[in-house]
Amino acid sequence: MKINNLDDGLALHTDYYILNMMYTYWKKGINRRRAVFECYFRQNPFNSGYAIFAGLEQVVNYLQNLHFSDSDIDYLRENGEFDEGFLQYLKNMTFCCDVRSVVEGDLVFANEPIFQVEGPLDQCSLVETAILSIINYQVLIATKASRIKSAAGDDVLLEFGSRRAQELEAGVWGARAAYIAGFDATSNVRAGKVFNIPVAGTHAHALVQYYQNDYEAFKAYAQTHHDCTFLVDTYDTLKSGVPSAIKVAKEMGDKISFKGVRIDSGDMAYISKRVREKLDNAGYPDAKIVASNDLDEIKIQNLKMQGAKIDIWGVGTHLITGYDQPALGAVYKMVAIEDGNGNMMDTLKLSSNAEKISTPGQKQVWRITNSKKDDKSEGDYVTLRDENPNELQELYMFHPQYTYINKTITDFKARPVLQSIFENGQLVYQLPTLAQIRNYCRQNLDSLWDEYKRDLNPQDYPVDLSQRLYDHKRHYIEYVHQQVKNMGTDD
Amino acid sequence: MKINNLDDGLALHTDYYILNMMYTYWKKGINRRRAVFECYFRQNPFNSGYAIFAGLEQVVNYLQNLHFSDSDIDYLRENGEFDEGFLQYLKNMTFCCDVRSVVEGDLVFANEPIFQVEGPLDQCSLVETAILSIINYQVLIATKASRIKSAAGDDVLLEFGSRRAQELEAGVWGARAAYIAGFDATSNVRAGKVFNIPVAGTHAHALVQYYQNDYEAFKAYAQTHHDCTFLVDTYDTLKSGVPSAIKVAKEMGDKISFKGVRIDSGDMAYISKRVREKLDNAGYPDAKIVASNDLDEIKIQNLKMQGAKIDIWGVGTHLITGYDQPALGAVYKMVAIEDGNGNMMDTLKLSSNAEKISTPGQKQVWRITNSKKDDKSEGDYVTLRDENPNELQELYMFHPQYTYINKTITDFKARPVLQSIFENGQLVYQLPTLAQIRNYCRQNLDSLWDEYKRDLNPQDYPVDLSQRLYDHKRHYIEYVHQQVKNMGTDD
Repeated sequence: MKINNLDDGLALHTDYYILNMMYTYWKKGINRRRAVFECYFRQNPFNSGYAIFAGLEQVVNYLQNLHFSDSDIDYLRENGEFDEGFLQYLKNMTFCCDVRSVVEGDLVFANEPIFQVEGPLDQCSLVETAILSIINYQVLIATKASRIKSAAGDDVLLEFGSRRAQELEAGVWGARAAYIAGFDATSNVRAGKVFNIPVAGTHAHALVQYYQNDYEAFKAYAQTHHDCTFLVDTYDTLKSGVPSAIKVAKEMGDKISFKGVRIDSGDMAYISKRVREKLDNAGYPDAKIVASNDLDEIKIQNLKMQGAKIDIWGVGTHLITGYDQPALGAVYKMVAIEDGNGNMMDTLKLSSNAEKISTPGQKQVWRITNSKKDDKSEGDYVTLRDENPNELQELYMFHPQYTYINKTITDFKARPVLQSIFENGQLVYQLPTLAQIRNYCRQNLDSLWDEYKRDLNPQDYPVDLSQRLYDHKRHYIEYVHQQVKNMGTDD
Repeated sequence: MKINNLDDGLALHTDYYILNMMYTYWKKGINRRRAVFECYFRQNPFNSGYAIFAGLEQVVNYLQNLHFSDSDIDYLRENGEFDEGFLQYLKNMTFCCDVRSVVEGDLVFANEPIFQVEGPLDQCSLVETAILSIINYQVLIATKASRIKSAAGDDVLLEFGSRRAQELEAGVWGARAAYIAGFDATSNVRAGKVFNIPVAGTHAHALVQYYQNDYEAFKAYAQTHHDCTFLVDTYDTLKSGVPSAIKVAKEMGDKISFKGVRIDSGDMAYISKRVREKLDNAGYPDAKIVASNDLDEIKIQNLKMQGAKIDIWGVGTHLITGYDQPALGAVYKMVAIEDGNGNMMDTLKLSSNAEKISTPGQKQVWRITNSKKDDKSEGDYVTLRDENPNELQELYMFHPQYTYINKTITDFKARPVLQSIFENGQLVYQLPTLAQIRNYCRQNLDSLWDEYKRDLNPQDYPVDLSQRLYDHKRHYIEYVHQQVKNMGTDD
């Protein structure tokens, strides 16, 4: 939503240093040099064996509407040290980059490019902050949701997090990411409306507080709704809530569909079993028990292990914030740049922190599956952009750090993971429906071995570099080290 | 921002169960019964001794623009089981509640009301989700920022979190919350524009990668900007980055203002000392060292203890997500409701979880200061709304759980913390400027004893109930227990 009247676009949703660099590029006449930037993250979130890509639809919206408004230009004129010529240049800027991306619902892994922007150096730079914010959040939530889905199995999962989401928009896009990864519905009606996600929810404690009595509250609800799930823990779940629910269900008979009860506090394992008994004994074996109360994948697994009789799980805070790791930490790095002669040169960022060293060159990611093993995933194979493993008879895959871990595969398929989204600023990708994305996500998870999918201590999924890319990276590191040595003056 | 063309308002940014309850209220003819809801949180975030209130300006925007759009009504018609009369009622709904709130920049504490809505039962219900999402996030981030400010002392603090924010809007409102709590600037230019927050930042690794050489990159930057802070860790901080920065500073002389260098990786304690030596030896004792790299209040305290020579701290991920506790967990509970005779009755929510029991009745919070002790805070005193401790000669304050912890104060002032914001849906509060809010925050922190402000193991700040409120709560718990016993049928 617009934050205030000055808030008329997202072009300034960028870090100030980016505008300062764009200004240097413009003054130096290198702003139109062709560059390639890639986005990747360094560790799978939540110690997960995989992550789920989401966020592309919002990124597409953002890029399609990217322009500097008059008030943006006014602000920069008053607050920066920019030439008027530069400000006019910004005002007339039209996004003209190529964008390649993983598509929503596909799997992604640490240390492989998941999003690429290629085009004029300044435009590639401008979009960094917004794209990272969007992808960092939605990949995080889709992955968390997938982990919860894995714990819940075939049980119904409801997204209940909006009130704890970090800002309103996170509630809506988070609900969408959760739905992609297998949640069945959201409580957020706005998310339901704008994305056509099923919505769920019956009543809160306030209804019972109004009547100061479970029975009367449930009765009132039942007299005004057909589908009824009663929240039974306002005063006392076993003594008052469940007996009142059963009483109302019996009194209303066929006039309502008694769906079940929800419990939101207390010892869920014990209480759910007692509630189940009461419902069964009353003749409602099909009535469901919904649980909510700070749930996450670990609590769900534990409750299931204890034999808790819970059919439907409402998950809020821990899902919508990615509670145990609330940031994915994806970065966006330059991997190639046009030199003064019009040739593309690859670039590298060194660092004292080894894991912060980037891999130079524009890349493609290939998902390798084995036709002899039900087309299950063998790993990801990262190549330079002009390589195509499908032209090879056999594929030699090796760990990029521990090269003694390696294997040769013969009966393989290689699927390119990065797809073309924009060409010269024009959208060339048909955005799928949310239902298609959700279905695609399930298919992708099916192709992954269970060993990579378990929540705790999954196997490391191979993300290997092609021999050429590996040699290329080592060569560049050596080259840059040599350059640093040459310019070095440390005492 | 608008998520898509269907996204034309925030009335549906609510949980579905709220709409279902509103429907029951409407069908039962109790939708206009007067109700009071209060928002509070149960624990200070981050084990902090206090929290800082923020979010009111956004809540005001939300409430002032609250209405159901045509597309909202169409959506509900197609997706709910609502009468057309109810839909027309929603369409014509105009917000007409009274709102009382803590004002931004004031201190707040666990287990006291920080926001109240009083008005028709259905309207009070409708706004719960959005208000909680806004307040939960902004109080969290303001409090985290205040903790970081406390660790950094008088050093300059820069908010660098946008790329890791959970959605774009969190980046902008989070930057504002950080500024309220003492941060000096943000990197987010949109936040700078819409809230008039100072913006900061010079260049990123990409500039150096473009030139493939620190010296040339810094030179290009210096030729195009007056104020120069160079990022020195792209290849090698001590061997290449800092010597290149010094070389450019010497070459450019008075043509630039050499502000200093930024380091973003490596052993910050060691490197910053070496960098300081180099800058001093080169004749730049006033050049500042900026550090960034997953900082938080603990890392800043540690670096300071190690004598790191860092003048300016850029804090991103850990601030903007409230990393170590990414949700405040504030709730919104009914505390009073009009009965059939037009009288207000207080209400209570019991729970098997003791800390989930609400305190009945509409309340005021009084901040008690001691005129004999520099007007420093003695604690908060929560009363029923018609009590005024200023009419008392002495104030007896006791812990609401451990009543043997108590004190009697004579020379006290009692300031009401909740202020009137809306009356009958009309804004009666003049929103202060952001500078005023930031200043007010500093004043409030000054009035708090250091023992409550330390980051680790602070003293418990007293949040006590007046004797009348305490007796009232016990009476209600007893009353409800008795009621539950009467209706109880547990086998």
